Amino acid sequence: MKEYVTICEVGPRDGLQMAKSIMTTEAKCAWIAGLAAAGLREIEVGSFVPARLIPQMADTDAVVRFTRTIPGLTVVALAPNLRGAQAAVAAGAHRVSVPVSVSEGHSRANLNRSPDEQVTVVSVIVEWMRDNAPGTELEVACSTAFGCSIDGVVAEHDVVRIAAALAEAGVSQIGLADTVGYANPAQIKSVVRAVRAEIGPALVGLHLHDTMGLGLANALAGLEAGIRDFDSALAGLGGCPFAPGASGNIVTEDLVFMLESMGFSTGVDLGGLMAARALLHEGLPHEAMHGQLAKAGIPRTFQQAI
Amino acid sequence: MKEYVTICEVGPRDGLQMAKSIMTTEAKCAWIAGLAAAGLREIEVGSFVPARLIPQMADTDAVVRFTRTIPGLTVVALAPNLRGAQAAVAAGAHRVSVPVSVSEGHSRANLNRSPDEQVTVVSVIVEWMRDNAPGTELEVACSTAFGCSIDGVVAEHDVVRIAAALAEAGVSQIGLADTVGYANPAQIKSVVRAVRAEIGPALVGLHLHDTMGLGLANALAGLEAGIRDFDSALAGLGGCPFAPGASGNIVTEDLVFMLESMGFSTGVDLGGLMAARALLHEGLPHEAMHGQLAKAGIPRTFQQAI
Repeated sequence: MKEYVTICEVGPRDGLQMAKSIMTTEAKCAWIAGLAAAGLREIEVGSFVPARLIPQMADTDAVVRFTRTIPGLTVVALAPNLRGAQAAVAAGAHRVSVPVSVSEGHSRANLNRSPDEQVTVVSVIVEWMRDNAPGTELEVACSTAFGCSIDGVVAEHDVVRIAAALAEAGVSQIGLADTVGYANPAQIKSVVRAVRAEIGPALVGLHLHDTMGLGLANALAGLEAGIRDFDSALAGLGGCPFAPGASGNIVTEDLVFMLESMGFSTGVDLGGLMAARALLHEGLPHEAMHGQLAKAGIPRTFQQAI
Repeated sequence: MKEYVTICEVGPRDGLQMAKSIMTTEAKCAWIAGLAAAGLREIEVGSFVPARLIPQMADTDAVVRFTRTIPGLTVVALAPNLRGAQAAVAAGAHRVSVPVSVSEGHSRANLNRSPDEQVTVVSVIVEWMRDNAPGTELEVACSTAFGCSIDGVVAEHDVVRIAAALAEAGVSQIGLADTVGYANPAQIKSVVRAVRAEIGPALVGLHLHDTMGLGLANALAGLEAGIRDFDSALAGLGGCPFAPGASGNIVTEDLVFMLESMGFSTGVDLGGLMAARALLHEGLPHEAMHGQLAKAGIPRTFQQAI
């Protein structure tokens, strides 16, 4: 019996929000259906943010309403505040993901609030959801947990402090995000262990970027530290406005290849991911697609876990 | 006191032999001098093979003679047989590197000999060097130790058997090469431990390729299994004729970044490597250069080990 690792595909949210052009709702839905058909069971399909800030996410309501009809799929939607969370619940998202930056600079730039103010926003969302959306999950991603392109080094004790405040506020699914891709494997293990010592199993996942080429090495470090839940994006889509040249999220297909090769089960089919890449390319023909598996092909030695 | 990790730059050999055009001897020597100036203390500068097979290596004699004058540099030259080893010693290489494929198919394709026949070639070289070049080091790289694009899966016991035969023949520096880039981190740890159990400290290094995007994750796995000696190539130069789309060796600058970020000392300066990239580009303007550090820049959180 192989051990299972959950992959949450974030391309339709974290990937598209940085895309140079806008994918149509139809193409988005076809792509997400393709991702689900490849076996991905958790997909972050969009974010409820003002369309004037991120026009690529203007159709998130329609995308959530469509994708929640895909059997077996957990539809995740990002919301930066209570209004967004309410919209996500109204559209029928199975899980609302709220970001809380650990660094002051990123928090101000991204949310126009301090980290502590955003923790307060989260506690309001927790209470509202407890009363109004008892069947909807809430997760919080601690952004810039491994470094910030505005503030520089992020102290481990600050990550622990924010994670503890979130757990205290009643959040039971907390992730750590290397938003700008500055983490290294030793740091991943150290921060994961420190946060877990504080909040235990409420620490669930890692969200990694491949800015410095260490994305999969960092995923391996997380895996060895006991993490069994990773965000990634097909074709390594995405990037960060504060890290020029960044190549975006870790590549879903390369991550699946690594995990399955190591004997973990992901439930995701590599051939299905290649088909989903074709749908992505159809919908966003001018966007650069990354990933080594797609370049080199699936090696003959590969055996998918069962 | 930081722990030291040795990096052997193999771009001038493993990288250039796959290049579409031929770098002039002058440009090669300037590039290698730049690599040494960045702090690389071991560089594989070329191979003594017939020029009709690999024209890029036709000037290896001249390159060895020049580079051995660079203070503090260990000049490594590849030789597939006794004649090549004799030429390397005559030119003044400090170390001769001989490949032995673990898989029958790669051995036949690359050396026109079986693995066992190549082990016999190595033992002849060991004896000749003992009598004629007592000051020159000999290392053997076990190619296709983690998979072969011709034979497919390579059994761990075959790697152990070849490594044991080499140690028995008197080789005291043995490396494991993921020639086609099929390895995964779990396999790296498993094979390293199995080989070390058989030959002890004669197992020194890993030579990794990034075909599937797992290069640095595999390096991390090797590091955790106690390896402190890695081959890599500036800009991820290279590739493998049997792995189309492969992106070549692991990227020196990204490897240095990972190791230094984790608190290891490499003696290599990232700025110096960026300068060496410029020299490489001057000498081979049409060759694709890889690597995330060069794309994203050195992040402000980075601190070089001292």
